This record gives sequence, C-alpha cells and structure tokens, in this order.
Amino acid sequence: MIKSIIFNIDDTLYDSSFQLEMARMNAVKAMIESGLPVDVERAFRTINDIVEKYGRYYSKHFDRMLEQLGLRWDPRIIAAGVVAYRETSWAFLKPFPDTIPTLLNLRDRGYKLGVISNGDPVKQWQKLIKIGIHHLFHKVLLTREHGKDNIDEEVFQFILGELDLHPEEGALVSSTYSCGILEAKSLGMVTIFLRRKPSLDKIADFKPTYEIDRLSEILNIL
Amino acid sequence: MIKSIIFNIDDTLYDSSFQLEMARMNAVKAMIESGLPVDVERAFRTINDIVEKYGRYYSKHFDRMLEQLGLRWDPRIIAAGVVAYRETSWAFLKPFPDTIPTLLNLRDRGYKLGVISNGDPVKQWQKLIKIGIHHLFHKVLLTREHGKDNIDEEVFQFILGELDLHPEEGALVSSTYSCGILEAKSLGMVTIFLRRKPSLDKIADFKPTYEIDRLSEILNIL
Repeated sequence: MIKSIIFNIDDTLYDSSFQLEMARMNAVKAMIESGLPVDVERAFRTINDIVEKYGRYYSKHFDRMLEQLGLRWDPRIIAAGVVAYRETSWAFLKPFPDTIPTLLNLRDRGYKLGVISNGDPVKQWQKLIKIGIHHLFHKVLLTREHGKDNIDEEVFQFILGELDLHPEEGALVSSTYSCGILEAKSLGMVTIFLRRKPSLDKIADFKPTYEIDRLSEILNIL
Repeated sequence: MIKSIIFNIDDTLYDSSFQLEMARMNAVKAMIESGLPVDVERAFRTINDIVEKYGRYYSKHFDRMLEQLGLRWDPRIIAAGVVAYRETSWAFLKPFPDTIPTLLNLRDRGYKLGVISNGDPVKQWQKLIKIGIHHLFHKVLLTREHGKDNIDEEVFQFILGELDLHPEEGALVSSTYSCGILEAKSLGMVTIFLRRKPSLDKIADFKPTYEIDRLSEILNIL
C-alpha cells in the first residue's frame, strides 16, 4: 500500500520547460530591441544551441551567444537579455494549476509527501519557495547535500528510511527517465510517469507502474 | 557654459542605499521564517557585516552569514534569503521620483546626457534598463570596458571627446566623493554633489561647484 508520494521538481511540480522557453524568447526579443542585429528565429536558435552546449546553469549564455553570432561583446545587449530572462523566468515560476490542490488533497488523505532532486540545493529550494509549496512537504532530499550528483537507490532508501517506510510503500512521480525512475523501480517502489508533450526522454523497453498526463490523476490511482 | 551633464548611477539616478537596506531586511525576515534561529536585529547586523567584509557583489553572503552565526549550512534558509533579496531589490530598483522628468527636461533644453560608472558593465546596464532610462542618455561609459576599475581623468576626457566638448562644458553629478568627483574637478569640469542623508562619504577640505538635495535642482543651477 502506498503511504508516501515523492516528487521530482522540474517539469513535475511546475512547467520548467515552458518557463525556460518563454524566458529565452523574451530575452532574445529584448536583445534585438537593444541592438542585436539578427532576427528572432536565428537568435532563438542560437541561444538554444548555447544552452544545450553549456547547460542550463552556466552564467554566460548571452556572452557566448554574441560570440557564436560573430559579434563583439556588448554589455548593453547582454544586460537587456539578462533582465528580460530574469523577469520572465521569475514570472513563469508558477505551479501547474493542479499542483497545490493535489498536494493538499494527498496530505489530507494522510500521505507523506517528499521531494527528491539532484539540482543545486539552493536553487531547488528557491523554486519550492517561489512556487509557494515549500511548507507542503514532509521531507525534501537534495542529493548534492549527500555528496551525490545523481538520484540512486541509496538516496531513495535514505528518504524512505526517514519516513519509516519500505520501498513498496513509496511512489516516485517524475516526468523524465533520468531523474531516478529506473532506480526507484529496481528498488521496488511504485513509479508514476508524468507524460509531457513533447516527451522529455524515452526508454523503449521500460514500463513505469503508472502513466499520467497531469498530477491530479494521482488521486485516481491511489 | 555647461553643455553636458554626466551622472553616476548608484545613489544618483536611483536610491541604491535604500534598495539594498530593504532587500537585506526582507532577506533576513524570510530566513527567520524558514528557520534561522536568531532575532531580526542580530541577523540584520550580521548580514551588514558580511556585505561590508565581502563587498556588495559577492555571491555567497548568506552562506557566510550562517557561518558567522555558528550555524550549519542550510540550503532552505539560504534560498529563502536569496528569493526575498532578489524580489525586494528588483522591486526597489526604481528611479527617484524626479529622475525621469529631470532627464527629459535636460534633453529638451539641448543638454547632452551621459552616464559614467566603474561598476560591472552588465550589471550597470541592467539597472539602467530596469529603471527604464537606458534610452535617455547620449553616451554611457563603463570604465571596465576600458580596462579601468576607477573613474579617472582619462575616462572623463574620453567621454567629453566623444561628445566633442571641453572639460569646462561638462558637469558631473555624483553623491559620493569616490566616483570621480575629485578627478572631474581637477580636470576643470563643473561638479554637482547630490547630498544623501546620511551622507555617503565626506572630504573635509573639498568643495564641489554646487551641492543639491535632489536631482531636479540641477534645473535651477543651469
């Protein structure tokens, strides 16, 4: 019997893919308004390439973008991108419409709620706080506080141990296969895959216990 | 005859001292709400000490603050501080009430408007853009783009040269003695000192050409 639901953060509790796409789009438009001499499509393609190449948390995306476009460093254009990116990503750091009602319903029904994430601990807490859900979880486990870059079986055992539960009493909700869903399954946990369109990744021969299209469908599973 | 007015940014075009004080105060309150076990006064005193020690642009103020309070690193408390600090400093990044009217009036009267600052170029442009005044200046000179950490006579000569003016045709407006006012005077420029309370710094035997209590008083001087 499931007694605890453990969630990833990005693309599970909020729409981080959409947030970042909007932030990049508005950044690009602001840079063009400040003098970047390329069209929106090319600029957007370039920033996406840069993020792919340097990762999401690199701090000089716009500097590299100017380089890749063959332009000289221009703090005015970069600043315009940073301001628009920051304002947009902050404005779109909002829960899915059913995130908070679902979490509250689960708490009311006695489920222990957890978060597990391998992102930067301070940044991940910032998201929970800004989304307004940091008080709703019984346990938040950020793997890097335990010296681990990835979510493995051991961190699941740790969080389940803290909640005094066996693996089969815990369910993981995730929208990607790279954030612990394989490890949760091999440990004997229930796995709930939140489908995103386009899907974030796929593994042909893997079957999660359940697949859902929105968080509130968890309430039908239990 | 004055033909150009050149402004510093911080505490001259907007109230950065007040902005940062409010941001620190709200950060401290949010950290306490997230579990920081000290009172507001002690927390506020500690963060002020840390900023004094490590400088305004250091990125780990809250980490150092926990250390100095003898507490263990806690990403939840740090994140609460970062979120509150960011939201508050962004909300208070607003021009003085008379900044924009004064700048527009000066433009209408034919004055060339400039900005000179030794701050981080991208951060300084961010401020001008967020405040909404980046389109109002004929020339923005950020000394670090010229490889200089400080505002010296040479950068004044450069910006005046770009505007095709002699030193005595240029006026510098600043609220601190450390951002070029001595150098501007020794070059023969007009110096306009914007008094802040409490005053940001003092040099006993130095007399600027004019002293004002708000930006709009420039209009009476000219």
